[in-house]
Amino acid sequence: MSSEKPILHSYYRSSCSWRVRTCLDWKGIDYEYCPVDLLEGDQKKEEYSEINPYKLVPTLIIDGNVLSQSVAILEYLEETRPEKPLLPKDPYKRALVRSLVQAIAGDIQPLQILKLYNILKVLEAIKTRVEKQLAKTSNKYCVGDEVTLADVCLLPQVYKANRFEIDMTKFPLIQRIANDLSELDAFKKAHPQNQIDCPAEEKKIRFLDI
Amino acid sequence: MSSEKPILHSYYRSSCSWRVRTCLDWKGIDYEYCPVDLLEGDQKKEEYSEINPYKLVPTLIIDGNVLSQSVAILEYLEETRPEKPLLPKDPYKRALVRSLVQAIAGDIQPLQILKLYNILKVLEAIKTRVEKQLAKTSNKYCVGDEVTLADVCLLPQVYKANRFEIDMTKFPLIQRIANDLSELDAFKKAHPQNQIDCPAEEKKIRFLDI
Repeated sequence: MSSEKPILHSYYRSSCSWRVRTCLDWKGIDYEYCPVDLLEGDQKKEEYSEINPYKLVPTLIIDGNVLSQSVAILEYLEETRPEKPLLPKDPYKRALVRSLVQAIAGDIQPLQILKLYNILKVLEAIKTRVEKQLAKTSNKYCVGDEVTLADVCLLPQVYKANRFEIDMTKFPLIQRIANDLSELDAFKKAHPQNQIDCPAEEKKIRFLDI
Repeated sequence: MSSEKPILHSYYRSSCSWRVRTCLDWKGIDYEYCPVDLLEGDQKKEEYSEINPYKLVPTLIIDGNVLSQSVAILEYLEETRPEKPLLPKDPYKRALVRSLVQAIAGDIQPLQILKLYNILKVLEAIKTRVEKQLAKTSNKYCVGDEVTLADVCLLPQVYKANRFEIDMTKFPLIQRIANDLSELDAFKKAHPQNQIDCPAEEKKIRFLDI
């Protein structure tokens, strides 16, 4: 592992960036924050698309490697920095965590980017399914009592749901876990409102319950 | 590990089911095929949604565990059956594979389910990005010369692109790798047209190049 400080190319409000920030902060990895303003189209500029051909945030530069796609980055950090683990040891429990990660990151997240015609309806349907799955797997957090990659992916989605003013009373488990997560230091530190590229006026907005 | 035969709940045409079939076949894991007819709504029936709260295929029952979400299942199989690996050993190369997996499975796949207004345009944009990434990482297959989880996810997407009649000449790397993959036994065995629930008339259709 290189001793150079990792650089995270991030947008404060991006769920995918937020996941990676939470993981870095959870593991106590100090990093340099490099803002990519998605509204200004920074991600489409040539110097950025050269390091990230998907023209998406985040990009993490670490150990001399350029990494893209949030879940791939989470897995890399887990493999190379196993301290303060975010995956359980047991293969079945790992599969439960990854199943939730995929349900949240794979099924929900791309929809939000696209401003679908019936985005709210689709989001509600998926949240209902995640809520059902959490009824089977959760205790204090998404899978049992330890914070995992599933929790890392969950909180940004609840924040988005609040932004879209989705009624979260139908998803009491998701909301309760999100509330507990939002009390943890790493999750606070990684929150959009605590990033250097968050506009001052947005830091004052209070989102429902978190 | 249980000696009982795994059961795969699958729909022959589902990309997510196809990924898991390919991985099982690649690793030489014998399994029982249990068709879930998505057009008939089998996935919404109570007995199915009890084992898969997401009401999606595939579900894999293995080692006494019920697993959902295709990528989580692929990772489980890789962890519990490391023979004939589908992930490289090096953490950076693993991240490259998982980055492509997420780009293909997370960004492309949910769009296809939803029949978006501008699905073709979005699909083309993502394929363009995957093609650019492959220019950096591929040799014989998606990442170097060994078949990985990225290849497992790639082939079903090319098949879908052909079904949507997307012009694949713009994506020569994707198409060339897909052609090579389609010659491999595990990929042939896992193909929709070789599944028991594929209607006879559909077995006759010839898809472009694969």
